[in-house]
Amino acid sequence: MAAAAIPSKLATQVLIPVAAAVGIAFAVVQWVLVSKVRVTPERRADGGAVKSGPSDYLIEEEEGLNDHNVVVKCAEIQTAISEGATSFLFTEYKYVGLFMGIFAILIFLFLGSVEGFSTKSQPCHYIKDQTCKPALANAIFSTIAFVLGAVTSLVSGFLGMKIATYANARTTLEARKGVGKAFITAFRAGAVMGFLLAASGLLVLYIAINLFGIYYGDDWEGLFEAITGYGLGGSSMALFGRVGGGIYTKAADVGADLVGKVERNIPEDDPRNPAVIADNVGDNVGDIAGMGSDLFGSYAESSCAALVVASISSFGINHEFTPMVYPLLVSSVGIIACLITTLFATDFFEIKAVDEIEPALKKQLIISTIVMTIGIALISWLGLPYTFTIFNFGVQKTVQSWQLFLCVAVGLWAGLVIGFVTEYYTSNAYSPVQDVADSCRTGAATNVIFGLALGYKSVIIPIFAIAFSIFLSFSLAAMYGVAVAALGMLSTIATGLAIDAYGPISDNAGGIAEMAGMSHRIRERTDALDAAGNTTAAIGKGFAIGSAALVSLALFGAFVSRAAISTVDVLTPKVFIGLIVGAMLPYWFSAMTMKSVGSAALKMVEEVRRQFNNIPGLMEGTTKPDYATCVKISTDASIKEMIPPGALVMLTPLIVGILFGVETLSGVLAGALVSGVQIAISASNTGGAWDNAKKYIEAGVSEHARTLGPKGSDPHKAAVIGDTIGDPLKDTSGPSLNILIKLMAVESLVFAPFFAAHGGILFKWL
Amino acid sequence: MAAAAIPSKLATQVLIPVAAAVGIAFAVVQWVLVSKVRVTPERRADGGAVKSGPSDYLIEEEEGLNDHNVVVKCAEIQTAISEGATSFLFTEYKYVGLFMGIFAILIFLFLGSVEGFSTKSQPCHYIKDQTCKPALANAIFSTIAFVLGAVTSLVSGFLGMKIATYANARTTLEARKGVGKAFITAFRAGAVMGFLLAASGLLVLYIAINLFGIYYGDDWEGLFEAITGYGLGGSSMALFGRVGGGIYTKAADVGADLVGKVERNIPEDDPRNPAVIADNVGDNVGDIAGMGSDLFGSYAESSCAALVVASISSFGINHEFTPMVYPLLVSSVGIIACLITTLFATDFFEIKAVDEIEPALKKQLIISTIVMTIGIALISWLGLPYTFTIFNFGVQKTVQSWQLFLCVAVGLWAGLVIGFVTEYYTSNAYSPVQDVADSCRTGAATNVIFGLALGYKSVIIPIFAIAFSIFLSFSLAAMYGVAVAALGMLSTIATGLAIDAYGPISDNAGGIAEMAGMSHRIRERTDALDAAGNTTAAIGKGFAIGSAALVSLALFGAFVSRAAISTVDVLTPKVFIGLIVGAMLPYWFSAMTMKSVGSAALKMVEEVRRQFNNIPGLMEGTTKPDYATCVKISTDASIKEMIPPGALVMLTPLIVGILFGVETLSGVLAGALVSGVQIAISASNTGGAWDNAKKYIEAGVSEHARTLGPKGSDPHKAAVIGDTIGDPLKDTSGPSLNILIKLMAVESLVFAPFFAAHGGILFKWL
Repeated sequence: MAAAAIPSKLATQVLIPVAAAVGIAFAVVQWVLVSKVRVTPERRADGGAVKSGPSDYLIEEEEGLNDHNVVVKCAEIQTAISEGATSFLFTEYKYVGLFMGIFAILIFLFLGSVEGFSTKSQPCHYIKDQTCKPALANAIFSTIAFVLGAVTSLVSGFLGMKIATYANARTTLEARKGVGKAFITAFRAGAVMGFLLAASGLLVLYIAINLFGIYYGDDWEGLFEAITGYGLGGSSMALFGRVGGGIYTKAADVGADLVGKVERNIPEDDPRNPAVIADNVGDNVGDIAGMGSDLFGSYAESSCAALVVASISSFGINHEFTPMVYPLLVSSVGIIACLITTLFATDFFEIKAVDEIEPALKKQLIISTIVMTIGIALISWLGLPYTFTIFNFGVQKTVQSWQLFLCVAVGLWAGLVIGFVTEYYTSNAYSPVQDVADSCRTGAATNVIFGLALGYKSVIIPIFAIAFSIFLSFSLAAMYGVAVAALGMLSTIATGLAIDAYGPISDNAGGIAEMAGMSHRIRERTDALDAAGNTTAAIGKGFAIGSAALVSLALFGAFVSRAAISTVDVLTPKVFIGLIVGAMLPYWFSAMTMKSVGSAALKMVEEVRRQFNNIPGLMEGTTKPDYATCVKISTDASIKEMIPPGALVMLTPLIVGILFGVETLSGVLAGALVSGVQIAISASNTGGAWDNAKKYIEAGVSEHARTLGPKGSDPHKAAVIGDTIGDPLKDTSGPSLNILIKLMAVESLVFAPFFAAHGGILFKWL
Repeated sequence: MAAAAIPSKLATQVLIPVAAAVGIAFAVVQWVLVSKVRVTPERRADGGAVKSGPSDYLIEEEEGLNDHNVVVKCAEIQTAISEGATSFLFTEYKYVGLFMGIFAILIFLFLGSVEGFSTKSQPCHYIKDQTCKPALANAIFSTIAFVLGAVTSLVSGFLGMKIATYANARTTLEARKGVGKAFITAFRAGAVMGFLLAASGLLVLYIAINLFGIYYGDDWEGLFEAITGYGLGGSSMALFGRVGGGIYTKAADVGADLVGKVERNIPEDDPRNPAVIADNVGDNVGDIAGMGSDLFGSYAESSCAALVVASISSFGINHEFTPMVYPLLVSSVGIIACLITTLFATDFFEIKAVDEIEPALKKQLIISTIVMTIGIALISWLGLPYTFTIFNFGVQKTVQSWQLFLCVAVGLWAGLVIGFVTEYYTSNAYSPVQDVADSCRTGAATNVIFGLALGYKSVIIPIFAIAFSIFLSFSLAAMYGVAVAALGMLSTIATGLAIDAYGPISDNAGGIAEMAGMSHRIRERTDALDAAGNTTAAIGKGFAIGSAALVSLALFGAFVSRAAISTVDVLTPKVFIGLIVGAMLPYWFSAMTMKSVGSAALKMVEEVRRQFNNIPGLMEGTTKPDYATCVKISTDASIKEMIPPGALVMLTPLIVGILFGVETLSGVLAGALVSGVQIAISASNTGGAWDNAKKYIEAGVSEHARTLGPKGSDPHKAAVIGDTIGDPLKDTSGPSLNILIKLMAVESLVFAPFFAAHGGILFKWL
């Protein structure tokens, strides 16, 4: 394969923002389409026709379209959820903002002190014969990049939450017209988030590179070193989003279930349950805003890791702009590939029945992967020279463009493999979850034993997939290969997020249907949407973890390069103790987050019990519960409880780097990575399996499932216990571990110059 | 500190077997003392006095001493348990024997093929100017050492089981006379096992070294290379003992509890429960024989790891016999130290009340540690030259005798720290378990969430203790330091095993009291013994895991040295994929063992239910259940289910070594070690905490505990669910992980010459 003529810098400078703009425009179009569904009965009342227009073909019979009360109720509930979510996020952002401010100052001080705040230019670190900008510049621009990353992450998460709370009631209302309509609404809303996030992440990074470039000029080594702050900002924000949001959502969920389902025997999402609004708010702040921040962080970090290595490879040394921004080109192509993929779900085909939902979502993954493989091949052929060199821990390794294509492609396809394995272990269409459901016959204990065993087992194939990707990409193109493999896995992020965000939106839609007292039939439709969403949520988590593993390794590699270590030898005491302590950190972190959920849930339980006992007429449905107090409990608990785990993650690299130095820190990063990824996968899948085992018994679609049910039977009660245990595992501690491993790595990378210069004081003393 | 004159080879040659003989003699004395308690009512009947003799001072009022029926019943139950255990162990040994035979042939073939079965002597591997025996000799003697290790482990486990099943009914009968008498009986029986195992392990190793030495002569490098087979044999046996025994005991326990306690609402150990004999058999084959094999394996492996490194250090090069066998001297001193310690429990002080039991057992740990510290100081001063060199991955590192003392001592004291932390997290005297008990208020789900969080949290301090020991010993004396640190932790193994074996014996004693229909008061006494035993069992597991971590690292270091790798660089794709896959193996293994317990328990549940439904008069107590069928189910299930996890552990090093080579295998070993130790600790402690949270509610000794109880209350039911989930975690999958990490390391060490010569064929092809 001979390389084509590489596009000029100008062409690349146009292509990237255009792709980002197309992504944003596409998101806006989807938003407009969602907004066509009206939740204001006033307007409907004055129009003659209840249908949105004459062209509106209704797949199934309409139900209750004329019932203005239902629409008013939906609007009310939507407003309550939206206000709860907004209020939580603003509270969260207030605290996080304070933290970010302090951390920004720390970054500036630490990095500025590397050369004693000198403003003099210095010889470059890697390319010795060139002159680089002073360390002080790195401190200033890293800090700016950090803030940019944090703000972009914050805005992405916030907008995602906004569109989700905008679309939830609309999905419910569309469910009256048929399952296809409801599906399209939820899916389009998910796509808004997916495309907005992918495009804005790309655009801000692109702008930052160009703006910083004005100062840095030809000093690309310094430029892309400063850009890594973007990844740190994105990931720090994600930490609080995931942990805070995760604690919020599960405190509310567990609290609501423990009193509602178990003690009072009322259904999920029953409006009499005081924690029901908090529970629905939680879906939005945890699964939408948290997940968005998480994947944005992965995206930003893998881009930064690739760029920082590229800047000291032949691309950077020779100032070849187009190959230099190859990671951004991959993401640009990804947006276009996902755009085409989305049309398959929204325009090319139509969902007509409940059992078409899950295949449609799975097809999204397959189509995006195939389209993207072609896209990667094209951009690797067009955007890269046939031969180039990549920095490999001190030496330059010769790489060919087709090898880099393989690196990106292996990441992309490994993501698909992880996705499908996750589906196999968490969907109740297959034997693993059915076995877990079957074990409920002998009670909650066997359910938990089988569920834990399932989670452990589900780790095997994903780890082999990750190991294979790492081996191939690492062997072909060193740490740059690993970074672009991560980017490959994340290149279809817009589609991944769309199907992922679809889940909580459908979940909310079901909750609103229940609360608004809509008919059983509507609830069945939203339940079907929700069940498919559960599986896609698990798949999304699989992607997030898989990409986190690759990203962390790439960041780790970049850190090692910048810290000027050439080997991380397990057979040295410094490294080994780092390794074993690092492998312990995910346990420490999980202990904190799980305990937090447990404690917060206990508080919620007390409040819900109090209301049931003290508010007369609540159980009878004649009085409304005090939703706001429950929302406040979740908010306060999650803000308070996110501090210790957040501090653990943020402070560990600083303490280890300063006291023990870069070798021990390398061990900690490697240990946390290889241990954390296992717990994260097993926790997510165990939780997902318990959730769907419960749904399997409830739905009772097979002969086997009916022998376990119905709702309220002993096996079902055992399944509910498993589901409740799984909640913090799958939605708080499991996914938060992604951030733990990524964030420690990117933080080490950013502070590497400081640690290399001033770290390891304990060993220096001894 | 100047070194004393080192004892001559002759003195050392006398000292070691004498210490071993003293240990065995002490064990025999204890056995004789236990045997004084008679379980044959015939003899009692013809004697005039019921008391064993006129000198027998009875602390508390005697109860039912004249009731011959009770004694007959006890004897019957004891026979049933003993026969069940013996029959299981013989069945297990039959299969394991077959496996060992095949594996012995494999060892011979693999190691013999290194030099193509040549009988010619060759230049030594490390000490290049010397001539060493041929690889074929290594093959033959390694195989013999393997068989010796396996047989010693087997005999140790078997004898432990024998004395335990011999002492259980005697403890019950002594409980009629008072808690102190019962304690002494159970503790003496535990001591029999502890001393037998420590002494025979030392003696066989000593004899093997001397016999092999006749052939090897001055080729110590070859001699101690062959001796490593001893560790492999001990550990292979331990794998099947732990896994098979673990599945047996928990299948029976979980099965008995699920139907008995949960469905039929009959107490634990009720004779109407068909699985009750199987449950009591399980305590002996799992907690006694399995634990014995496990600790014997650790002991053999750490000795072998230390010896193999010593043989290529100055001790071996200069043929200094006494310092060469320093590891054996440490163990010899350990036996004497433990002997003194035991007297504190059995002779110097007397237990008079229930609340003196736990402090007495804890004092054992503290006394043995203090006495042993002095012993180590003495033997390091007497047995080592002031300065010597230790092999450190290719170079010789200068070490001083006091530094080696520090290495052994840090291991010893780290063991104590781990023991006390384990106690803090698993004893219901402290807040962690009480918090877990409190969380039962809101049901089983919160109990499980809090319990898992507790287990995760309990990992933190032990890992820091292990990391500190590793850092100190590794820095001072390289891998030899780590090996002797492990040996330090295990030097008080006789005491450790005594208090550990005491637990299941008391558990059995309680079961026998219940089944024999003895009074509530007797049961209360045995329960108190048992509760203390639960905590010491957790402490014992903590020791086992901590020492396993150190041993594995030492073995890993020895493997790396023999495989002629000088660095294990995480930053190479070969090593990194090994690391991440290795970190996954404990999850794979746990998935297998937990699923095995779950499946076997389900079979047991079906059988127990069948008997309750089909045998008329069973619930009323008028008909006896069919105990034998339940014993057979546990036996068959455990034999069948131990094969896949066993194969995973045994085959992984072979497959990885042959296909991917020694670098990847190094990664696998390091990954499995740092990941496995965390899961092992958290699983053991979570399980122990749930067990004691349940006991806390049942005992109701505090105001708080009483608000959660009594037995049968909702919080108690939730606690029972947690206890049942914890069973496989703490007694099957958790402790088996010790063996996983140790065995893979020692197997790699034994096969290292083969892998170095012929391994990595996959990479050679590519």
